[in-house]
Amino acid sequence: MDTRRLSLNQITVNSWSLEQAVAGCERHEIGAVALWRDKIAAAGLPRAAKLVREAGLRVSSVCRGGMFTDPAADPAAVLDDNRRAVEEAAELGADTLVLVCGPLVDKDLPGARTRVRDGIAALLPHAAAAGVRLAIEPLHPMMISVRSVVVSIGQALDLVEELEPAHPGHLGVIVDAYHVWWDPALEQQLQRATGKVFGYHVSDWLPGTSDLLLDRGIMGDGLMDLPKLSAQVAATGFDGPVEVEILSSRWWAEDPDDVLRLVRKRFEEFV
Amino acid sequence: MDTRRLSLNQITVNSWSLEQAVAGCERHEIGAVALWRDKIAAAGLPRAAKLVREAGLRVSSVCRGGMFTDPAADPAAVLDDNRRAVEEAAELGADTLVLVCGPLVDKDLPGARTRVRDGIAALLPHAAAAGVRLAIEPLHPMMISVRSVVVSIGQALDLVEELEPAHPGHLGVIVDAYHVWWDPALEQQLQRATGKVFGYHVSDWLPGTSDLLLDRGIMGDGLMDLPKLSAQVAATGFDGPVEVEILSSRWWAEDPDDVLRLVRKRFEEFV
Repeated sequence: MDTRRLSLNQITVNSWSLEQAVAGCERHEIGAVALWRDKIAAAGLPRAAKLVREAGLRVSSVCRGGMFTDPAADPAAVLDDNRRAVEEAAELGADTLVLVCGPLVDKDLPGARTRVRDGIAALLPHAAAAGVRLAIEPLHPMMISVRSVVVSIGQALDLVEELEPAHPGHLGVIVDAYHVWWDPALEQQLQRATGKVFGYHVSDWLPGTSDLLLDRGIMGDGLMDLPKLSAQVAATGFDGPVEVEILSSRWWAEDPDDVLRLVRKRFEEFV
Repeated sequence: MDTRRLSLNQITVNSWSLEQAVAGCERHEIGAVALWRDKIAAAGLPRAAKLVREAGLRVSSVCRGGMFTDPAADPAAVLDDNRRAVEEAAELGADTLVLVCGPLVDKDLPGARTRVRDGIAALLPHAAAAGVRLAIEPLHPMMISVRSVVVSIGQALDLVEELEPAHPGHLGVIVDAYHVWWDPALEQQLQRATGKVFGYHVSDWLPGTSDLLLDRGIMGDGLMDLPKLSAQVAATGFDGPVEVEILSSRWWAEDPDDVLRLVRKRFEEFV
């Protein structure tokens, strides 16, 4: 894929601050960046916004809102935190706010999924008012007890189709290849996603992967047929920045500049 | 669940030989056992068959046939090995031969899935001739690159519906709770599984699970609503032995007799 579509998801260079990530994008001629809220907080929101604006960087997403599932949490407090995330995304001019919907913490999986639905429904009017698009990111089923009870594109699209009509254009999905590539229904589900894909993330699934969170590969090192998935995502109409998002204790231990050189090369060759 | 339905999947007491597992079942008043081929080979097939017969044990399954996916493997050799597995299952009078369909070893996931289909189609007449029922076991998507490209009950049922009519009653599915509990489509898919469920396996998903293969919990220690799933499986008509299958480096380090006492108790309370 043309490297002009490359966006650096900040977690790929996790040891860097927001300032360093912005400078890294400039150094490696990367035109877009995805920012994490902890790094935005560390830099300070106004300063973060100023930095990306001055660097001419497009913010492909802010990661993340969501975490709707804890039955012990006060829904008003959850909504408050999500509204702050919406405000940050608005201030940064981000394409979308990623929703990581929250893990299962008890034995009531249907209940957790209902709380996700209700949480998004409550947040959506605020996002629409702020001009921010929300994107549900299904995560790999192995992360159900640590991150997300939304585990497939089909499930995410069901939520979009139910909730989006009240706020047209403000709710969609993220297709993260690592999280959804295994799904036998993926191709079919993407066929009903026209105009609903707000983001596309890439990395790779290593053959002998050894960790549930921090062992993603760089594109080309694993088993994914990314060009095929890229074509399916393109067919939905998505033509925005493509985020490289690599959570990897191995790559985090390397020099981030070396990682970015390799990411650019592999993006061109394998995405 | 009534402990009269409990079957000990031998991997739960992995440090025991087949002889020890059979004796353990007698000691703990467990009426059924699931045997693994490496343990059968170690005991010798005729001796294994004699032991379970003399102990009055029902063999709920033999684990496993399958492994159809390697494009470098000779299909005739794969079929030969699977025919031997069928013969072992027949000799042991097993309810079913479990098929673990094989991992993805290159970037061609559709190709691997086609090889699974073709491999089952080739094996099925031999199984039918031997009076052995084959059961496709979908495995958790996190195991796609080490065990199985079949990852959901829906996908397994598609294969059954395509291939079973040529050999009625000889192809079905295994519902292993650990592998499929996360699936938003599970309840709906089980509604089309009437008469097609040949086995039901239980364990639990630990909240902070740390390993992709060897960190299953004992029923009650995790997040699964097993009684609800048990009811859905029962509604398909399945009323056979329910296997407790716990791959766990933690529990493998304990005294197997202690594990079996706990398994019996938890089976009654949480399945």
